[in-house]
Amino acid sequence: MDTEIKDVIMVGAGPSSLAAAIYTTRENIGTVLYEKGAVGGLAAITDMVDNYPGFPDGVEGLTLASQLEQQAKRFGAKIEFGDVSAIRDEGDVKVVTVDGSEVRAKTILIATGSDYNKVGVPGEAEYYGRGVHYCATCDGAFYRDKRLVVVGGGNSAVQEAIFLTRFASHIDLLVRSTIKASEILQHDLQPLVDAGKITVHLNSPITEIVAVEGKVTSVLATKDGEPLTIEIDGVFIFVGLKPNTQFLAGSGIELDEVGLVKTDHKLQTNIPGIFASGDVRSGATMQIASAVGEGASAALSIREYIDEHKHTHA
Amino acid sequence: MDTEIKDVIMVGAGPSSLAAAIYTTRENIGTVLYEKGAVGGLAAITDMVDNYPGFPDGVEGLTLASQLEQQAKRFGAKIEFGDVSAIRDEGDVKVVTVDGSEVRAKTILIATGSDYNKVGVPGEAEYYGRGVHYCATCDGAFYRDKRLVVVGGGNSAVQEAIFLTRFASHIDLLVRSTIKASEILQHDLQPLVDAGKITVHLNSPITEIVAVEGKVTSVLATKDGEPLTIEIDGVFIFVGLKPNTQFLAGSGIELDEVGLVKTDHKLQTNIPGIFASGDVRSGATMQIASAVGEGASAALSIREYIDEHKHTHA
Repeated sequence: MDTEIKDVIMVGAGPSSLAAAIYTTRENIGTVLYEKGAVGGLAAITDMVDNYPGFPDGVEGLTLASQLEQQAKRFGAKIEFGDVSAIRDEGDVKVVTVDGSEVRAKTILIATGSDYNKVGVPGEAEYYGRGVHYCATCDGAFYRDKRLVVVGGGNSAVQEAIFLTRFASHIDLLVRSTIKASEILQHDLQPLVDAGKITVHLNSPITEIVAVEGKVTSVLATKDGEPLTIEIDGVFIFVGLKPNTQFLAGSGIELDEVGLVKTDHKLQTNIPGIFASGDVRSGATMQIASAVGEGASAALSIREYIDEHKHTHA
Repeated sequence: MDTEIKDVIMVGAGPSSLAAAIYTTRENIGTVLYEKGAVGGLAAITDMVDNYPGFPDGVEGLTLASQLEQQAKRFGAKIEFGDVSAIRDEGDVKVVTVDGSEVRAKTILIATGSDYNKVGVPGEAEYYGRGVHYCATCDGAFYRDKRLVVVGGGNSAVQEAIFLTRFASHIDLLVRSTIKASEILQHDLQPLVDAGKITVHLNSPITEIVAVEGKVTSVLATKDGEPLTIEIDGVFIFVGLKPNTQFLAGSGIELDEVGLVKTDHKLQTNIPGIFASGDVRSGATMQIASAVGEGASAALSIREYIDEHKHTHA
């Protein structure tokens, strides 16, 4: 067992915790990040990030992720690979279980993000970020005057299909069974259907995303059991979000109804000394800029917490 | 009078509203920013920004400001120079008075920032950002093992002097009259005084900041009426913050006790359709990363508000 008590352990090494680590390490707050997947989180697997402020012509997701990592490491952040399976509050000390071993810290930042649920059809993983998208705010603007398929029948699918009509010339909405979205959203949808901007296909599960020479060209589905082919330029999939908070089961950390971590205005959870920022936080926007900004703010809260509790650790 | 109703008027063109404008304009939300000073706000007059995430080796403040401006303009943001003297809520329409004329919008983003109060001595303005600083979180790390003067006797001066001992080898705290900081902070200060890390000078108003060949080398003060010269590498001044919210007098927008704008978790003020982000917001961290992140989040709230109210405007 590692008996050293670290200043802060950050769970996850995506944009939010990397930003937080830039702040904490620059202020000599000892910082370790544990990541079980790719450093940079969803940013690292995004083709082009057009709206992260500071890069006028956009920046490749992988480049941005790498630059965030370099900047955090420059000031002394330690990034380690490991799977965090549990956290435990012991008052002034927090215990994190990583790959079966326990490590201790004065504070924890939960920044494990959320993943987009997948439909699991051929072509979906292959063309992620290059024709297949999960975030309309991020990637909708790449499809001005293009044809799109939107997959899903819940609130977010209908809301984002409506939003995407700002850009797309036409949208086919593929709904597996029936529309589950709220009446208000269905009411907003109707005029767009009447105007021919959106075509709704009920009982139409998607079966494949087809690309020619690396470019997504069509979507295959079955409509009432009959094959359906739709020629398009891109596909947006909205079938839910999975917050990476399974490891918090039994920790006492309060989650909201979809499993995101609740925080106060200081980004602190219901347990003092345990903070959360980025896409894992209730109210998250799923935007890199917001995640980064919250990381910076969380770092200042972490510093304040450590300063206020230093006498008990001395 | 301009009779057109714009989608959103942003008051101020600093990092927070430029970030918001990147988001709104990219989504075809018509956006006008009014700025009475320099585009880029405090960032534009900062020598080097070391902790804005995404730039591993830091970025010049002016470069960052210019890149934010280019990015917002790329998607269609209009930046106009003008002094906003009042805003008025007329329900679905908000009225902004700019240089005596009225312009109308569905929504407003208040992003006028805050200014650091100055002590008003020779050398202060000339060496701003190059030896004279107002933000310990931003610039403290540039002074590892250096000697500093901290000016002020209130809570933030004492708190930041304590914080700066993480970096500086020694700090002279110049207090105009007596220390006004809380008892807790004075209690935290004492061991650092005892250890010789901080020397407190009471009744010691600063009179001049002296530089040799462009480099700050000493601070002049009077101590109990006698001249005092302190050789140092940098000066941090903490004599209060002035939120740029005078134009909100009579608007009905709720401010906190220091004059910052109160917002909810969606960054909306107490008046629906009027939002605030960045350094002007109650709870602000005075960090560019946080201001930018809040700008992005505010943009999403603005879009949501416009979408929900479009029937009343149609």
